[in-house]
Amino acid sequence: MPATFKAAVLSEFKTPIVLREFPLPQSTEPGGALVRIQMAGVCGTDVHLWKGQLPIPRPNILGHETVGIIEQCGVALEQDWRGVPLQKGDRVTWSSSLACGHCFYCKEKRQPTRCLNRKAYGISYNCDEPPHCNGGYAEFIYLRPGSAIFKLDDQLTTERVIGAGCALVTAIHGIERMGLNWGDVVVIQGAGPVGLAALAVALNHGASRVILIGGPEERLKTARRFGAAECLNIEHFPSAERRIQRVRELTRGHGADAVIECVGSPEVVPEALEMCRDGAKFLVLGHYGDAGEVSINPHVITRKQLQLHGSWGSEHRHMAQALEFLASQGGRFPFEELVTHRFPLDRVMEAIETTQKWQSTKSVVVP
Amino acid sequence: MPATFKAAVLSEFKTPIVLREFPLPQSTEPGGALVRIQMAGVCGTDVHLWKGQLPIPRPNILGHETVGIIEQCGVALEQDWRGVPLQKGDRVTWSSSLACGHCFYCKEKRQPTRCLNRKAYGISYNCDEPPHCNGGYAEFIYLRPGSAIFKLDDQLTTERVIGAGCALVTAIHGIERMGLNWGDVVVIQGAGPVGLAALAVALNHGASRVILIGGPEERLKTARRFGAAECLNIEHFPSAERRIQRVRELTRGHGADAVIECVGSPEVVPEALEMCRDGAKFLVLGHYGDAGEVSINPHVITRKQLQLHGSWGSEHRHMAQALEFLASQGGRFPFEELVTHRFPLDRVMEAIETTQKWQSTKSVVVP
Amino acid sequence: MPATFKAAVLSEFKTPIVLREFPLPQSTEPGGALVRIQMAGVCGTDVHLWKGQLPIPRPNILGHETVGIIEQCGVALEQDWRGVPLQKGDRVTWSSSLACGHCFYCKEKRQPTRCLNRKAYGISYNCDEPPHCNGGYAEFIYLRPGSAIFKLDDQLTTERVIGAGCALVTAIHGIERMGLNWGDVVVIQGAGPVGLAALAVALNHGASRVILIGGPEERLKTARRFGAAECLNIEHFPSAERRIQRVRELTRGHGADAVIECVGSPEVVPEALEMCRDGAKFLVLGHYGDAGEVSINPHVITRKQLQLHGSWGSEHRHMAQALEFLASQGGRFPFEELVTHRFPLDRVMEAIETTQKWQSTKSVVVP
Amino acid sequence: MPATFKAAVLSEFKTPIVLREFPLPQSTEPGGALVRIQMAGVCGTDVHLWKGQLPIPRPNILGHETVGIIEQCGVALEQDWRGVPLQKGDRVTWSSSLACGHCFYCKEKRQPTRCLNRKAYGISYNCDEPPHCNGGYAEFIYLRPGSAIFKLDDQLTTERVIGAGCALVTAIHGIERMGLNWGDVVVIQGAGPVGLAALAVALNHGASRVILIGGPEERLKTARRFGAAECLNIEHFPSAERRIQRVRELTRGHGADAVIECVGSPEVVPEALEMCRDGAKFLVLGHYGDAGEVSINPHVITRKQLQLHGSWGSEHRHMAQALEFLASQGGRFPFEELVTHRFPLDRVMEAIETTQKWQSTKSVVVP
Repeated sequence: MPATFKAAVLSEFKTPIVLREFPLPQSTEPGGALVRIQMAGVCGTDVHLWKGQLPIPRPNILGHETVGIIEQCGVALEQDWRGVPLQKGDRVTWSSSLACGHCFYCKEKRQPTRCLNRKAYGISYNCDEPPHCNGGYAEFIYLRPGSAIFKLDDQLTTERVIGAGCALVTAIHGIERMGLNWGDVVVIQGAGPVGLAALAVALNHGASRVILIGGPEERLKTARRFGAAECLNIEHFPSAERRIQRVRELTRGHGADAVIECVGSPEVVPEALEMCRDGAKFLVLGHYGDAGEVSINPHVITRKQLQLHGSWGSEHRHMAQALEFLASQGGRFPFEELVTHRFPLDRVMEAIETTQKWQSTKSVVVP
Repeated sequence: MPATFKAAVLSEFKTPIVLREFPLPQSTEPGGALVRIQMAGVCGTDVHLWKGQLPIPRPNILGHETVGIIEQCGVALEQDWRGVPLQKGDRVTWSSSLACGHCFYCKEKRQPTRCLNRKAYGISYNCDEPPHCNGGYAEFIYLRPGSAIFKLDDQLTTERVIGAGCALVTAIHGIERMGLNWGDVVVIQGAGPVGLAALAVALNHGASRVILIGGPEERLKTARRFGAAECLNIEHFPSAERRIQRVRELTRGHGADAVIECVGSPEVVPEALEMCRDGAKFLVLGHYGDAGEVSINPHVITRKQLQLHGSWGSEHRHMAQALEFLASQGGRFPFEELVTHRFPLDRVMEAIETTQKWQSTKSVVVP
Repeated sequence: MPATFKAAVLSEFKTPIVLREFPLPQSTEPGGALVRIQMAGVCGTDVHLWKGQLPIPRPNILGHETVGIIEQCGVALEQDWRGVPLQKGDRVTWSSSLACGHCFYCKEKRQPTRCLNRKAYGISYNCDEPPHCNGGYAEFIYLRPGSAIFKLDDQLTTERVIGAGCALVTAIHGIERMGLNWGDVVVIQGAGPVGLAALAVALNHGASRVILIGGPEERLKTARRFGAAECLNIEHFPSAERRIQRVRELTRGHGADAVIECVGSPEVVPEALEMCRDGAKFLVLGHYGDAGEVSINPHVITRKQLQLHGSWGSEHRHMAQALEFLASQGGRFPFEELVTHRFPLDRVMEAIETTQKWQSTKSVVVP
Repeated sequence: MPATFKAAVLSEFKTPIVLREFPLPQSTEPGGALVRIQMAGVCGTDVHLWKGQLPIPRPNILGHETVGIIEQCGVALEQDWRGVPLQKGDRVTWSSSLACGHCFYCKEKRQPTRCLNRKAYGISYNCDEPPHCNGGYAEFIYLRPGSAIFKLDDQLTTERVIGAGCALVTAIHGIERMGLNWGDVVVIQGAGPVGLAALAVALNHGASRVILIGGPEERLKTARRFGAAECLNIEHFPSAERRIQRVRELTRGHGADAVIECVGSPEVVPEALEMCRDGAKFLVLGHYGDAGEVSINPHVITRKQLQLHGSWGSEHRHMAQALEFLASQGGRFPFEELVTHRFPLDRVMEAIETTQKWQSTKSVVVP
């Protein structure tokens, strides 16, 4: 094992991410693991983090969607989260977050995604502190005891896992929280990774038709391949009024049974309320960053007797579901095709920029 | 039977309601009934209607919470909605609204409260058109075929039924839609009839504690008698910040499991979001009138993974539940005590004013 | 219009069904329709009815899965159940059952499938009484006012609708009642029309894998084409022990998340309880006939904390869902291929025999 | 601290329980605690265990409903399960069971009551092995790290906590799994501690009326005090037919909305199915012991579209709910009154016999 590892480090918000070298942990705690990173996805949240829209410690090694090879297994780490035998050399992915298991939300409310002491790789750790390697944009990552590790089957490619990224578990959790009725007509706002993942999960969940709103055209092509019944390109439908009108035309004038927001811009929220039929469900899934306020009319919620749902992150069991889904539904939903741009470790800044500018569907870092 | 009947008529919005005389229908269609009105409640919605905040036909006889005695039963009207035998002389109440049974919402979505052809006594009818007597502020009302009529047991007083009014069925439907988990800590915003009804239903539904926010003190006394664990008088807690802080103090710092809005003012909506613990439910129950917009932050919905629910009106089965509840839980929740002010038919305007000015808990009209 | 119509009539249980001629209704009530029958499916229930396992009036024209062409529209029948314009010459199907809309189950419990006054075409009517034509095994059928009629889109073939038959709406209703969690591993007992329909609905509902148990091989081929992950041919797995063992092998030793019984034989019920993982759901969907008792151990229900669900018939909205499903998912689930045997009206007895002897996947009658 | 402690020990099934002395642990692991027992309840399950109806290790110190005073707190045990500060001298109770947190049921299915490695105080431990003190019928008990300990408020008497016993958490969990609709009419089979607890929880959950079936008269008196609308004494209603008939008379001929079995005898299961209205729920809650099989007709489940639910044990969060319930609803449901018989440690055998013979409502052991 090398004595040091290289990592792409965010030192100050909105300043270039640069390569640094850190000492590599030479031993592993019981239950922990040292993993050599194979590929790390760039998530829209990384753009928000780089901009400083969430209060994270610095310096910080970003990257929370990762696949790698186990280099060293701590004592007692003999099985993955599902009980599959685990050893050095196995290709694995893991949940980016760890919940404490002891707080009000973990215990009394069974809601570990809102754990009061939650930590996430690629987000919550200062990389100047040992073991340093806590994020995906690096040659190595150290997985602490209690991490939810998942061994990957050989048929499940690294590209498909990273192509799905945290968007897929986010969509799975969100749609679980909202609930979909079989046969629902669903509108998805947004054609980014979360929108596409929500499309796949909604279709697999028995949505009868999904109307997807977004752009650019490249992403809409993927959406159609995944099975979207109709895609509204926002270049051709630049006004909310026209989009609302089109959704109504496609739904016998009533509006959709469910709307899933995967954009993150406040102004799409009142638009979604107009796209809902009376009694519809609306999942606010894209607002991971605080993008400010928007004006809504509460009378609409009462009169149309709507349901609004929020959902944050995911639980480990959603990762287990996601991997099962990717393995069995790969032919129908080829998430690997989302990976359009690849960057080495010294060009992480560029990878984030292509994501920010919507130039890629999914950019990945290959250390 | 008399040839004419007197009624309090709204001719123009925001102008005095005056007594008029109309011809009384002398015969009844099959399935219909003519009822001599005993008592009619004044609902907060009547204030909104009088102000013109909803587009209703005029002239109009308001009054949609009513108890009366059957004067004439149409052929084939032999049973009430639940199958109880019905005849002339019976004391009855009825659902104010009728759904068509044939539209998209009635059939495909089983959501008759959003029937596309919904009509409501005391709201939807022009009283210049026969049979004229379509509202509660009158000596008689004509119940059309298909109306959901409920015979009242002798022990169930008219005061208790009208004291509960449409607030109770509104609360029952709303809480059914939102769902309460057993043992939930609930905050209710508002101490009017809907707030007090929501208090009773939430407690009976297994809420472990209910914190009620509102005023004036007279209504809070009723709330305490009904079992509120704590009442925040808005005179003593005039700022949202202080109210939010107090709710947190009472909930181990986390916020409530559920918040029920029974106020109708947009500004209490963001306040409620702050009173919610992560993963909480929020029922927007008070916005029957369009009182304008309010600014909210969608990020809060995502991050706290909240659920928001709206609910409109009620179904006939909720009236059946309400009457059962009033009969069996009368000792615990003495709704008859809400009736604080009584007015004859020629003083309906005054009855509405006492409601508007919060001078009464519940004003009623006794023709 | 002809003066008479021919029909296949069941006069006595377990005796041959024979052709008879009846006067054809020459006029149609408001809201009713006279339909010339194109095709009628033979359902397993017809076998039970012929044997006398349910108390039905006689003589009786069986046949409750039917497609036909409107020959005469009653006044006021201008739209189908969903509001689609309707006229003479349209190809239609309809719900076989009518609920009264007024009884305890229709109103208070919103459960029209258990309507106390339920009637079904092909089951509940004595054909000696006018209008005589009340079943599918005939040249004409008279649809009474209140029937739920559905116009068929041109692309939706009669074969596909009849191939799905009442099995599909039965499966849709049953799975709605039980609820499936996304990603569930499901076992289906039975490869008849209900089993195959349950397979299609479960897969479309997000089941991750479906294991189907049944025979003969011909039907299992269809099951594999529909997407069954594994089929256990009961010829090769003749003992319950071996079947239970195989299900456990396929489910990491735990058992299935859900089991759906589509057989109708009591002895498969305790077998299903053994196939359930702890906390699993079990839908008893195949017991339309009274096939006697079976011994179970209630301790298993408590200890494994199981859920058992029954489901009877379907509501009109399930037919709307079924037609939408057949239209959009036809490529994935080609129900038309289930139609393996066709018979003219004078060979209905033979059609029922091929069904009884499992010689056909689905027999149909073409008048 | 004393060097030894006394305990009532079950050495062989169906033979007298006798007093023995064991070495008392003199130190406590981090997170563990040594507790001086104040009172331990006798549960119906103890009778089954004594009889050998479940395979438990021997010798064994029974007793799984316990309140005691902390004698020694292990390092790091600073808070109870809910985060309340904890220290030597505090009066506490605890969940009798510990789940592993790592198995299929704990993680993937969030169902710790079916943990594959579950252990329970008073049931799963051989008392010849250190730390010996693992059951409630003893002077001391040693609570292992990971135990869910709950500090008791001063107002919450030991009698009330033990009077409710594990019956209350069992009822809370069971009713949570089944779900009750507000206003349901509920039948409870059985007047023992589980039946009385189910009565309290069902009423607090919004059941409109509860009909309780059981005996002897003493327990029915308690049931009436708790709010049962009607009690059927099985001495006066010795036949299932008469009981079914009476339930139908009390439910307008339809049957109950929900039935809760708290008896443990297989023959009451088919009786319950007859007491259910169509579409009703049935909770099989009393079958903790394997009391053999019973014949049922699966056609009844399909035709009446019933739901059956099982439920096993409880989770720690149900204990938190139970204590909150006992604290706030004590006036309405005085569980302390269930404690009718008290025994010292050397008369545990007698305590179990009074339970077995229904001589007591609740027997307790006071060491």
